[in-house]
Amino acid sequence: MENYKKIIEDIYLELKNVDDTGEVANYISELATVSPDNFGVNITTTNKENFGVGDFNTKFSIQSISKVFALTLAYKFEDAKLWERVNVEPSGNPFNSLLQLEANLGIPRNPFINSGAIVVCDVLCSHLKNPKEDFLDFCKEVSNNTDLKYNEKVAQSEKKSGFRNIALCNFIKSFGNIKNDVDEVLDFYFHICSLEMSCKELSKISLFLADDNFITNKGHRILTMSQAKRINAILLTCGFYDESGEFAFKVGLPGKSGVGGGIIAIHPDKYCIAVWSPKLNEKGNSYKGMLFLETFTTKTASSIF
Amino acid sequence: MENYKKIIEDIYLELKNVDDTGEVANYISELATVSPDNFGVNITTTNKENFGVGDFNTKFSIQSISKVFALTLAYKFEDAKLWERVNVEPSGNPFNSLLQLEANLGIPRNPFINSGAIVVCDVLCSHLKNPKEDFLDFCKEVSNNTDLKYNEKVAQSEKKSGFRNIALCNFIKSFGNIKNDVDEVLDFYFHICSLEMSCKELSKISLFLADDNFITNKGHRILTMSQAKRINAILLTCGFYDESGEFAFKVGLPGKSGVGGGIIAIHPDKYCIAVWSPKLNEKGNSYKGMLFLETFTTKTASSIF
Amino acid sequence: MENYKKIIEDIYLELKNVDDTGEVANYISELATVSPDNFGVNITTTNKENFGVGDFNTKFSIQSISKVFALTLAYKFEDAKLWERVNVEPSGNPFNSLLQLEANLGIPRNPFINSGAIVVCDVLCSHLKNPKEDFLDFCKEVSNNTDLKYNEKVAQSEKKSGFRNIALCNFIKSFGNIKNDVDEVLDFYFHICSLEMSCKELSKISLFLADDNFITNKGHRILTMSQAKRINAILLTCGFYDESGEFAFKVGLPGKSGVGGGIIAIHPDKYCIAVWSPKLNEKGNSYKGMLFLETFTTKTASSIF
Amino acid sequence: MENYKKIIEDIYLELKNVDDTGEVANYISELATVSPDNFGVNITTTNKENFGVGDFNTKFSIQSISKVFALTLAYKFEDAKLWERVNVEPSGNPFNSLLQLEANLGIPRNPFINSGAIVVCDVLCSHLKNPKEDFLDFCKEVSNNTDLKYNEKVAQSEKKSGFRNIALCNFIKSFGNIKNDVDEVLDFYFHICSLEMSCKELSKISLFLADDNFITNKGHRILTMSQAKRINAILLTCGFYDESGEFAFKVGLPGKSGVGGGIIAIHPDKYCIAVWSPKLNEKGNSYKGMLFLETFTTKTASSIF
Repeated sequence: MENYKKIIEDIYLELKNVDDTGEVANYISELATVSPDNFGVNITTTNKENFGVGDFNTKFSIQSISKVFALTLAYKFEDAKLWERVNVEPSGNPFNSLLQLEANLGIPRNPFINSGAIVVCDVLCSHLKNPKEDFLDFCKEVSNNTDLKYNEKVAQSEKKSGFRNIALCNFIKSFGNIKNDVDEVLDFYFHICSLEMSCKELSKISLFLADDNFITNKGHRILTMSQAKRINAILLTCGFYDESGEFAFKVGLPGKSGVGGGIIAIHPDKYCIAVWSPKLNEKGNSYKGMLFLETFTTKTASSIF
Repeated sequence: MENYKKIIEDIYLELKNVDDTGEVANYISELATVSPDNFGVNITTTNKENFGVGDFNTKFSIQSISKVFALTLAYKFEDAKLWERVNVEPSGNPFNSLLQLEANLGIPRNPFINSGAIVVCDVLCSHLKNPKEDFLDFCKEVSNNTDLKYNEKVAQSEKKSGFRNIALCNFIKSFGNIKNDVDEVLDFYFHICSLEMSCKELSKISLFLADDNFITNKGHRILTMSQAKRINAILLTCGFYDESGEFAFKVGLPGKSGVGGGIIAIHPDKYCIAVWSPKLNEKGNSYKGMLFLETFTTKTASSIF
Repeated sequence: MENYKKIIEDIYLELKNVDDTGEVANYISELATVSPDNFGVNITTTNKENFGVGDFNTKFSIQSISKVFALTLAYKFEDAKLWERVNVEPSGNPFNSLLQLEANLGIPRNPFINSGAIVVCDVLCSHLKNPKEDFLDFCKEVSNNTDLKYNEKVAQSEKKSGFRNIALCNFIKSFGNIKNDVDEVLDFYFHICSLEMSCKELSKISLFLADDNFITNKGHRILTMSQAKRINAILLTCGFYDESGEFAFKVGLPGKSGVGGGIIAIHPDKYCIAVWSPKLNEKGNSYKGMLFLETFTTKTASSIF
Repeated sequence: MENYKKIIEDIYLELKNVDDTGEVANYISELATVSPDNFGVNITTTNKENFGVGDFNTKFSIQSISKVFALTLAYKFEDAKLWERVNVEPSGNPFNSLLQLEANLGIPRNPFINSGAIVVCDVLCSHLKNPKEDFLDFCKEVSNNTDLKYNEKVAQSEKKSGFRNIALCNFIKSFGNIKNDVDEVLDFYFHICSLEMSCKELSKISLFLADDNFITNKGHRILTMSQAKRINAILLTCGFYDESGEFAFKVGLPGKSGVGGGIIAIHPDKYCIAVWSPKLNEKGNSYKGMLFLETFTTKTASSIF
């Protein structure tokens, strides 16, 4: 850990004042008001050591990163049967998602594009009595952290302007791959995207993907080792939309980004690292976050390849 | 190694008589005449130990696997400039390749789909005096093996029936991303695909991707450590056409398949393994080869995730 | 007219018992219950003569044919400004409509595919105080017929199962090309599709497209001559989804079909003809209706070409 | 005719000095050297009257307009069987042509996009002993004009830079819908596109599409009435690439454009009119030519709708 600390601090200082050409997400006003200067990093190692710099303790909207935890819970419920409802292939190109849904008769390419995450939410709606409460409880147990909340304002805001997600959900429903009521599924989807965590919380909740023997403080195993490895594989091939190849190429770790500017990355058997910087590159991933992680895995020579 | 030997032998025996529903590639007659019963496996570890079972010493047409070595040589010549000519993103969907070429103005999605490999060949044509001879010499040095040859009959056969590759090359040329004469580039491309190797030779020639300190017997380094890691990353995200996600998910190793029924897979810092079984699944990857590797990484718990 | 009568009767008898391999639309139960044996034809000439055979007096669900009248009213309100909201190009291919919407930033290819008709409905919602009542009144005046009604059951049924249209409307809204509330626009859209008319009523209401000097009994002109010609042009190029070219090729008249099995065709300066036979070919157009019209224009040598 | 003369002269003068924002085609140097100021019009009526203004007697490269005559000859040979090799539907969108070829297994959408014209050329190569000479003889007979020639320089120039057409032809061949040698078909295709005619010659050679009783001076009928009507129908729906709907909408006549700046339009039973002005709009159709024809059919109220 000492080694990581020094490197993280160095990169943090080096990048802190780098001119960031990205743009803060502004499609909903709640995200647009976040200060672009926020910059935090936190690492948690498999032996539970923990270290953060900058705004690592400030909560932010984790947005699509929550798709990882939704997928985890759905996978726990359905195991391999889940893959009949959603595929595990990279999606290639953003504008294709609708064409591909049509070609694949309503089966999304993977669980990390919006259409796939909506199907995952539908699966959870079928299993959970109170989807929103139950999912939050699951996140609390995984992270051993009772201080987790949805941001109701963000959720409502997405609902009001989320025409494209409403379109996707109805389109998939027309193929029969949404089983529950469209409004219920979308309400759940918009809520999980509004979850708020700090870098510290994010790196801790993701630990079950790095540690084969992870057990919650209540004594539960989250996933089997094989299941965890498979989620890491999907993260590597699909975690960054159509920049997934680029992230694998430059960073070399499984990871997931959100439009709130957060990124998590997992080094199996070693650590989870979370970065937050709100300005996004043109592909919708945190500009400084990607730069930090690329530098970090280069300096620590710790890519999985 | 002892551990690997036993597991490989066990899986080999288990799968040898498994009913294989795949089909031998038949778009050129030379591939169709290969006996579907061939089945060989060979592992080479980073400490140069070597072990094979079945038809591991029989040469076969490595087809698209040669794209890995062409990419390696082009990367050596051009370093990061290469990525201005070809991207590193998974291509999503086979039927999209032409649409994507159009959308991306002639820049192929990655170097392992046909369009990308053709651009890589064009890059090599610009650097090599005698592309066919020089590329073969490069392969001989990397594998410390003088017994490598193109199969002229296979090359001519592909040339005669390769209308789609001719279409691709002309289409890319129309965007200016082929610099040399179309016929010269395609002749080179068809030849490298006709290279023949055995599983043993394949696992040995790929060792430079697993071993950070690999040096040829002439004392040359092939790639920097960072370059080798990046090729592994592209292999993981793009090595199996639109089954790349599936391979990452099930096998968890960087790898590359060819329509001759061969597959190589690399475990960084540990080993290279080559499998050969000619019957292909519907995505064009060796049915039994994929099954072997999935079982192998499960039993050895040696995926990179 | 005498000439037309004889030919219509002859073709009617000839086709009445032809084996019809088509299928009745069954995506909503109300349409599926219609007897497939219905077969009616009615012609109305520009000098107001009228002739029908078979079930020409039976009302049926005109479905997409109502898009012609919605377009007419919107064109009347907006004139050329309408074409900033919807294009006039054939759409090529059914599965492309969503891809094209994306490429064209929410501007539908033409007003006769669903996305285009939904935008036309949105335009009408902006102009009409009570869209459903006002549109019905417009249809009543054009056809000098007070006996026109929506079928509330059909409208509700489409609403309940119209996930794809809901998807389209939300998708277009995400580009800003729907100005009113999505639910209001769709409710209006589902209602106009549920309009019921007989062949006789249909051929009469369409007369304003054939007769340059058409004036309603209240003394109103519907469209200018130039506007009417332009609607005919769009009907010819876009009236039959991706069978539009085929219809122009075989029948040679502007026309529009509906999944209820109705078709109208217009011979400028001569006549309107309406045909009804519920079984649809695989492109969703009335099998016997198309056959009737092809035979009719061949025998009367009355295509516009 | 007197009426037409006056109107043509008036519009000609009105448009002659209109500022033309289009661009002369420059993808081959031979076309780029033509003076953008050329502007000619010629009408030929079904009763053989003839009138021209401006540069109506200057020959220019008719380019894609020759596809009409190639289609005519192929249709003459194959009749309805031709449509098994090429469809009659508008293509929707330029960038889709390759995707559509893939979806339709090598059957082009219509005979006026490049892929379709190449298939038509292949059909002719199967029927003609000396395709280039025989096709030229056919054009000479139809137009009663021995002074027709290919421009060898233009043909060679297209050949050298026609990578996209070479791509198309090979792509279709990969589906088996090109029967002859790719080089032979393309050589023929590039030659017919290099045909040169004046507006006067163009309007005369097209007369067989307007006159049901057209007979060559050698006493031959070119097409049956029904066949001629059907070609007109395809011209109307597909003659202007993805501006076909717009042309039908604004001009209201079957027609065909070429990148040399020529356009022909046909009013069945009345006349053929040819216009030439080299500057093209962004869809690749003559800017001033389209404007002329729109004004002409408006002033003469002579659209087919």
